[in-house]
Amino acid sequence: MIERVLSSEMSSYEGRAISMAGWVHRIRDFGGVRFIVLRDRGGLAQIVLPRALDLSSIGSECVIRVEGKVHSEPRAPTGWELHAENIKCLSCAEPPPVEIFAPPAAVKHRLETLLDNRAVSLRIPEVLDVFRIQAEILRAFREFLTGQGFTEVKTPKLVKAGAEGGSAIFEVGYFDDVAYLAQSPQFYKQIMVGSGLERVFEVGPVYRAEKSETSRHLTEYVSLDFEMGFVDSHQDVIEMHAALVRSIIQSVGENCRPILEKRGVSVSEVSQIPQVSFDEAKEILAKSFGKTQGLEGDLDTEGEILMGQWAREQLDSELIYVTGYSIAKRPAYTMADPSCPERSRSFDLLYKGVEITTGGQRIHDYEQLIDSFKARRIDPAGCEGYLSVFRHGMCPHGGMGMGLERLTKQMLDLANVREACLFPRDRRRITP
Amino acid sequence: MIERVLSSEMSSYEGRAISMAGWVHRIRDFGGVRFIVLRDRGGLAQIVLPRALDLSSIGSECVIRVEGKVHSEPRAPTGWELHAENIKCLSCAEPPPVEIFAPPAAVKHRLETLLDNRAVSLRIPEVLDVFRIQAEILRAFREFLTGQGFTEVKTPKLVKAGAEGGSAIFEVGYFDDVAYLAQSPQFYKQIMVGSGLERVFEVGPVYRAEKSETSRHLTEYVSLDFEMGFVDSHQDVIEMHAALVRSIIQSVGENCRPILEKRGVSVSEVSQIPQVSFDEAKEILAKSFGKTQGLEGDLDTEGEILMGQWAREQLDSELIYVTGYSIAKRPAYTMADPSCPERSRSFDLLYKGVEITTGGQRIHDYEQLIDSFKARRIDPAGCEGYLSVFRHGMCPHGGMGMGLERLTKQMLDLANVREACLFPRDRRRITP
Repeated sequence: MIERVLSSEMSSYEGRAISMAGWVHRIRDFGGVRFIVLRDRGGLAQIVLPRALDLSSIGSECVIRVEGKVHSEPRAPTGWELHAENIKCLSCAEPPPVEIFAPPAAVKHRLETLLDNRAVSLRIPEVLDVFRIQAEILRAFREFLTGQGFTEVKTPKLVKAGAEGGSAIFEVGYFDDVAYLAQSPQFYKQIMVGSGLERVFEVGPVYRAEKSETSRHLTEYVSLDFEMGFVDSHQDVIEMHAALVRSIIQSVGENCRPILEKRGVSVSEVSQIPQVSFDEAKEILAKSFGKTQGLEGDLDTEGEILMGQWAREQLDSELIYVTGYSIAKRPAYTMADPSCPERSRSFDLLYKGVEITTGGQRIHDYEQLIDSFKARRIDPAGCEGYLSVFRHGMCPHGGMGMGLERLTKQMLDLANVREACLFPRDRRRITP
Repeated sequence: MIERVLSSEMSSYEGRAISMAGWVHRIRDFGGVRFIVLRDRGGLAQIVLPRALDLSSIGSECVIRVEGKVHSEPRAPTGWELHAENIKCLSCAEPPPVEIFAPPAAVKHRLETLLDNRAVSLRIPEVLDVFRIQAEILRAFREFLTGQGFTEVKTPKLVKAGAEGGSAIFEVGYFDDVAYLAQSPQFYKQIMVGSGLERVFEVGPVYRAEKSETSRHLTEYVSLDFEMGFVDSHQDVIEMHAALVRSIIQSVGENCRPILEKRGVSVSEVSQIPQVSFDEAKEILAKSFGKTQGLEGDLDTEGEILMGQWAREQLDSELIYVTGYSIAKRPAYTMADPSCPERSRSFDLLYKGVEITTGGQRIHDYEQLIDSFKARRIDPAGCEGYLSVFRHGMCPHGGMGMGLERLTKQMLDLANVREACLFPRDRRRITP
């Protein structure tokens, strides 16, 4: 069989006989000349079809294989076109339930329609490109941390106790017992710091039985986590995290340029990420926006949006750390600020006004942790396997969790986090 | 504060004042001289302590910080030692429930004891090293596939229907509805091939409500999956997979040499991976081992072990593909062999006599797939979101799933797959 060439590789095959294969993106019949725009994993290619070829069985979204010769053609999308000599239909297609060919600006399907028809709507290049960016985010996340001496770990999502507290947890029938879906890998990554790996990261699903159906909540999402030992405070975690975020943004900017340009999104290089304390944020919100409500210990959604606006306008930054939230608003494992015990050594990162990361220093002293559990009416007896690491020598440590879908959404200015999730799950959606 | 140096970095700091931090692996008191063997993420370091320093509060597994100068010392494990000038205990430790310091050969704790005390037993260097290897397997898996034009995807583990059939599925309460934990990402990776990405891979947890408690079954494990479009048969999948396995084994051999040497494991370079059909395997088992039972359509556990033995003895290979299992023994999405419809275009890879990979070509024709579903009494109505991809133009495709823990176990000659899982889950174990 003649070698298959991708649309992105045509320029190396001028004048040569090749085969191409993919989906029929579009058929154009100008009477004298007929074209197929072929879509493969390399992009789009223009195929010129002689009148002799029978196209009666071939429509949009059919999978075809064509053989022919590559010719230079400045008017074709890639600068090259294939003059087909034969064509074969590998798989027929019913008319798609959503339009797949459309000029980019015309991708105006309702999100619900796109999600109901996900198996087909993912073929829209603008929809699919989001996930090419997401794959690069994942790659860059791991590459940076591996270079900083972190080890990747895989921890269980079937657990016996939630790490983040609250009732937003899914229950699983486990033989004759009951288990839960992990809300975060928190306890496990702390154990792995204490194992001696010191620096660990994990990429895996987490589960929140959130009843709220907002544009930024999913019941299943991918959490990008790291945890590191021998920190002096949450500032060491912020320093590592800021370098990580810079590295991810730089990688996407460098390696996904064509997609970003097509979307009209500029991913600007990040130098320094500014930082304000929660108390400073409250002052800013009162002074600049007259906002004084919804700020009891942490920022509400509006507070995050306004702080994002302030950072952009006043500091020319799309990113801003907010530190020192009220300890009462953070999980039981959070370290209090020694100089002000009602404040925590914690931080959030806001990206264009949305929280994409939560992190901080954790309690490493056993007695202190037990006290914190009891103060929140969590029974330590249910977490003995976790707590034992603190009885047997635990280094000071901290870490963070970052939502992959939210990061993707904010980076690409998507309206809804569901656009940044291949098969989103929320209270009402569990298929496809 | 003086710069923290890892035990693996000491050689660059001769004569300089540094600090080191980590766990007290061992204390040795020779009367005149006292040593601490410090354990950090770089390895082990020898610390020499002057008599003046008070060690009364310091015992095994305490977390300490020491400051001092680096001296050459050929008798020390790294060739260097730290002459401590001061020492500080950052975290006290109760005596560990399992011995952490021990010559390697003495790591003879019962597996149940290691797992019951996982937060501490992971500190045993021989136990922890397994997961350093595992992290390298993950890295090598993704690096190879990314280089072959595959895109990483993240698909949901909360699903409405199982992909692999059978009753071994966990049920999740989903608000007022019911969902299940994914047995594999099969349907989703097929949709992603059809999305136009053509080549996708995923690393994620999968769930099997297996009642069997064998040395190779877990209820939650990490599945390494790829799926690729435009294949001519399962042989294209095997070719890609064989190159992947070669690349992983080579990466571990090159990048984890010290750990392999310490364990006495040789990870030999793989050239060609031999292949036999299921019918040939039956003949071999009958002729060489007198085995004729337990081979109804696929190999039983004993059959796999004996085929592994045969491959090693007759072909000098630790790896062997077995192809063409009975279609009745494979899932509904498996492509039948056109020349022999009761056989399938499927394969398993046996590594030292244990199946670590299952793969094959999948059905891409809608009608054929519906027929296959119906023949197995699966209601297509429950899988409409999946099946729709086949109505709208689907390329011929195939792929595979490989168990991370089994691959790790076989590579390192571990006795039980639980040794290759940080926090294993089985019928009786859901903690820690």
